[in-house]
Amino acid sequence: MDNVGSLEVRVRPFEVDFRGKLTFPLLMNQFLNAAGIHASARGFGITQLNENDKTWVLSRAAIELNSFPKSGEFFEIQTWIEGVMRTFTLRNFAVLDASGTVVGYARTIWAMIDVNTRKPVNLEGLGIEKYKENIECPIERSGKIPMLENYVESKFTVKYSDVDINQHLNSAKYVEHIVDVFSLQQFSGRDIVRFEIEYIEECHYGEEITVKKMEVSENEYVVVLQNEKEEIVCKSHVYFSEESKE
Amino acid sequence: MDNVGSLEVRVRPFEVDFRGKLTFPLLMNQFLNAAGIHASARGFGITQLNENDKTWVLSRAAIELNSFPKSGEFFEIQTWIEGVMRTFTLRNFAVLDASGTVVGYARTIWAMIDVNTRKPVNLEGLGIEKYKENIECPIERSGKIPMLENYVESKFTVKYSDVDINQHLNSAKYVEHIVDVFSLQQFSGRDIVRFEIEYIEECHYGEEITVKKMEVSENEYVVVLQNEKEEIVCKSHVYFSEESKE
Repeated sequence: MDNVGSLEVRVRPFEVDFRGKLTFPLLMNQFLNAAGIHASARGFGITQLNENDKTWVLSRAAIELNSFPKSGEFFEIQTWIEGVMRTFTLRNFAVLDASGTVVGYARTIWAMIDVNTRKPVNLEGLGIEKYKENIECPIERSGKIPMLENYVESKFTVKYSDVDINQHLNSAKYVEHIVDVFSLQQFSGRDIVRFEIEYIEECHYGEEITVKKMEVSENEYVVVLQNEKEEIVCKSHVYFSEESKE
Repeated sequence: MDNVGSLEVRVRPFEVDFRGKLTFPLLMNQFLNAAGIHASARGFGITQLNENDKTWVLSRAAIELNSFPKSGEFFEIQTWIEGVMRTFTLRNFAVLDASGTVVGYARTIWAMIDVNTRKPVNLEGLGIEKYKENIECPIERSGKIPMLENYVESKFTVKYSDVDINQHLNSAKYVEHIVDVFSLQQFSGRDIVRFEIEYIEECHYGEEITVKKMEVSENEYVVVLQNEKEEIVCKSHVYFSEESKE
């Protein structure tokens, strides 16, 4: 089997925002979808891991896109494993538009955990490394996300439509709550050109989460999610394009 | 062209809830998607109407389903026009599972409005009635939704990922905010077997909406949305199955 997975996706009309462009959380969902299909076809998908009480946990992602697909348009996500370490695996992605032009990349870092102990599993010798592929992924790795003193605060409670099959806030819903701190004006004529996220703690159904939006500059923000114990559950670094893209 | 439209859909892994079943708001999205594809193919889709400054507005829906598709499963939505009146058109739907068995129906009522005056347009003589189809849709029409004195209140603000291309709360997001008033326990072993919704006013970006949940009985609720002027913007009537379906 080829080391690179490919998923072709058509943007449904209800998956776009007020600008008619695919929303960032739904792009994230498609990365997760492509990863799942790629892993399952090679014997290390979540369903297969679950049989041995293991699961994948997304730890970090860095995503860059210079063009977002619009309603009705097709795009392709390619994904491959860059490397396997003791406790982390590196999975990269490329996004291609309908003409086959690369419009973006993503780098993600995953841990495998035991579902009972929630502790990381040693990834070496599980046979994942034989699918390793050396393809260029010309975007920077996730960096350390800075914390700023000043912030604007909002809150949300984790609800029915936020949670996955484990009753935790699902990975793309973190992203939805993060992009929802930005106004329509912020998105007018600007795209998110780089997005970094660090998942730190699980959020459970019913928890009240505080979202702190910190402005680095007009087009660069840090968004931090905290739970009721004031633990940081997620950090993200959001870069908008500087000039009008319309 | 056949009077009945058909849309085959595969449930994506991120479109299911904690029980692994397609969520109600995403089912609603697929009804809207099927309606849009059916109308466009016959010359009266939103894009075509927009050329003459007209658009479709969903006014009411009644949906009954006795089985929800799960992650990875295919289902089919069939849709047709039952009738065209002066200011409303009646559009019905059937939902079929992968084996072709009908698992549900929906009845919807639509108005066409002028986008500038926001006033209804006379639907007679526009050529829509020639696609009328007389197929059985054995569920009750929407009834009058009762108002109860006692309620539990919650609030949400209309955000970036809530709005459609007109910067209004999109029709399926009303449904998401409605189902989000129910606990995971309410959904455990129970399905929504009938759902009625009446759209009354548009909700705009930035508005704070109050959600009032009224309990008719253990498995029957009325959920009402109000805007900051205390105008009712939406009413819904939600019926859960009485017994465990697991």
